[in-house]
Amino acid sequence: MTYQEAVRHIHQLMDDKIEFLFKDKQPESLYQAMLYPIEAGGKRIRPLMLAFSCQAVGGALDVCLDVALAVELLHTFTLVHDDIMDHDALRRGRPTVHVKWDEPTAILAGDGLVTLAFQSLSQTNHPHLKEILQIFTNGLLELCEGQAMDKAFEVQSSVKLDEYLEMIDKKTARLIEVSCRIGAVIGNGSDEEQEAIRKYACNLGWAFQIQDDLLDLISNESVSGKPIGSDLREKKKTILTILFENRASDIQRNQFLKLWKQNSLSNEEIHEIRTLFEETGVIGETQNRINALLNEASKALNTLQPSDHRNHLNAMILHLKDRVA
Amino acid sequence: MTYQEAVRHIHQLMDDKIEFLFKDKQPESLYQAMLYPIEAGGKRIRPLMLAFSCQAVGGALDVCLDVALAVELLHTFTLVHDDIMDHDALRRGRPTVHVKWDEPTAILAGDGLVTLAFQSLSQTNHPHLKEILQIFTNGLLELCEGQAMDKAFEVQSSVKLDEYLEMIDKKTARLIEVSCRIGAVIGNGSDEEQEAIRKYACNLGWAFQIQDDLLDLISNESVSGKPIGSDLREKKKTILTILFENRASDIQRNQFLKLWKQNSLSNEEIHEIRTLFEETGVIGETQNRINALLNEASKALNTLQPSDHRNHLNAMILHLKDRVA
Repeated sequence: MTYQEAVRHIHQLMDDKIEFLFKDKQPESLYQAMLYPIEAGGKRIRPLMLAFSCQAVGGALDVCLDVALAVELLHTFTLVHDDIMDHDALRRGRPTVHVKWDEPTAILAGDGLVTLAFQSLSQTNHPHLKEILQIFTNGLLELCEGQAMDKAFEVQSSVKLDEYLEMIDKKTARLIEVSCRIGAVIGNGSDEEQEAIRKYACNLGWAFQIQDDLLDLISNESVSGKPIGSDLREKKKTILTILFENRASDIQRNQFLKLWKQNSLSNEEIHEIRTLFEETGVIGETQNRINALLNEASKALNTLQPSDHRNHLNAMILHLKDRVA
Repeated sequence: MTYQEAVRHIHQLMDDKIEFLFKDKQPESLYQAMLYPIEAGGKRIRPLMLAFSCQAVGGALDVCLDVALAVELLHTFTLVHDDIMDHDALRRGRPTVHVKWDEPTAILAGDGLVTLAFQSLSQTNHPHLKEILQIFTNGLLELCEGQAMDKAFEVQSSVKLDEYLEMIDKKTARLIEVSCRIGAVIGNGSDEEQEAIRKYACNLGWAFQIQDDLLDLISNESVSGKPIGSDLREKKKTILTILFENRASDIQRNQFLKLWKQNSLSNEEIHEIRTLFEETGVIGETQNRINALLNEASKALNTLQPSDHRNHLNAMILHLKDRVA
């Protein structure tokens, strides 16, 4: 099976499961607000990774589907609540849940989604349910910690690179790692295989978030559905601002701070900042970091037996490398 | 062991577990906002019920403590998020989490608490983990449904008694039922014992919420920490307003609606409404319903073998009967 065929197949299985899960559920005021963000599609990256990891160590696809759905539900829950906390009005080009409905509805929809995630997880007949549940819950707790760190950065005058890397490790990489690790556990992978999968996932997760920071500044707005430079407008500390802090001359830093301190930034001013980041080599260093992490991810996979599924995990790296939004 | 001794013992065990759980946890911005509402004390009714149910069917206390903590964490999570949704500024006489911190912090603190609940649940070594997890998640989902129904009632012109009873069954009784049922499962109770415990819990849970509605109007403000008549001020449909709707004459209904439609109600006007509820027999009928449910709860316990623990479950009924806030 080619990568595209495998992706389509798993997407279809997920869509069927979601349809079944939400069928005839009452009250509508709750379930419509829960279905809306998960129906929005997205790339289903975490279920794909879980399924490919399971299969790459010799597991069967059908035994991991409930848990694959669980990680997608969990991911969707974090998006719904993060969008409230971050006051984001758009997600994938559509109004976010708290904008389309209201904050109480979005809080409750998120709570419902995380519950469905655990419910879906509890369907598995795998004998290692306890281990799977613990990976899942420990990961989710770190996710909350990462989000709290991210919020704390907003009022922190300066953020060190180490702190930033710990935050993205928890906030973004953890759920990707959890997905892959659980896949490897369900597939009954050896310790060595599980470790390889874990390494792959962490490196990919870190690269994914760093690339997100980069794309926020250089992506195509019509593809991302988000306005360009939104992190800068919201005064978010990202790898770009942290590297800039370390690399800029006093003149460059002052130029940046003058713009940063404004209440609102025009597209032209966003481009001025982008130019500053280019001049100081921040964009280049960020790109190098992404490439190095993706190379590590790819290398980790060499431990696994060659298979279509290992190829699919590799394809996800290439796919990530090529994304423009 | 007397009831008071048993309660003190379990309270102490819960407090120790909570202290251990939160020790040295980082980031503080997250964990302090999570600890605050669970430290607030409360009566730990759900852990007590879980523990007594477990012991009343012959189980040991120490095997159920992790799950007892899980239901308390879950309960606390619902309070934190419900207080945001309901715009409540006070809980047990102290500022609520979103007032003491802010809404994003309170959303995330709730998310952290529900995660800790599942983490604590996953510690159990009981062979029926899957069943326990499913009772827990299915119950939590119904809790979300009950909260959604409650919110929907706010904009619904009239609420039928049946709808109200379904809402409180989900929003309040379910978690009490879940606690008791899980206790009975962990204690390896027979089917008959589990059913008796379930019946006890449901009746107690319904009585608890109906009494909450009643106490909102007739409680002692300094004990409850909540202003009297807050449900009326927030235009909440409760068993009192629903029974009144069915029992009032046109004149009484008009008197009530004139007050109900006001933007704010003085304490004197709250007392006028209370008098209307008394004249129409609403207060009396509500009290009768509470007593009938508590009698059913007590009767259900007769199926269990006599024991201190069965006595403790009975004592909780009496305790509920006597509460004034």
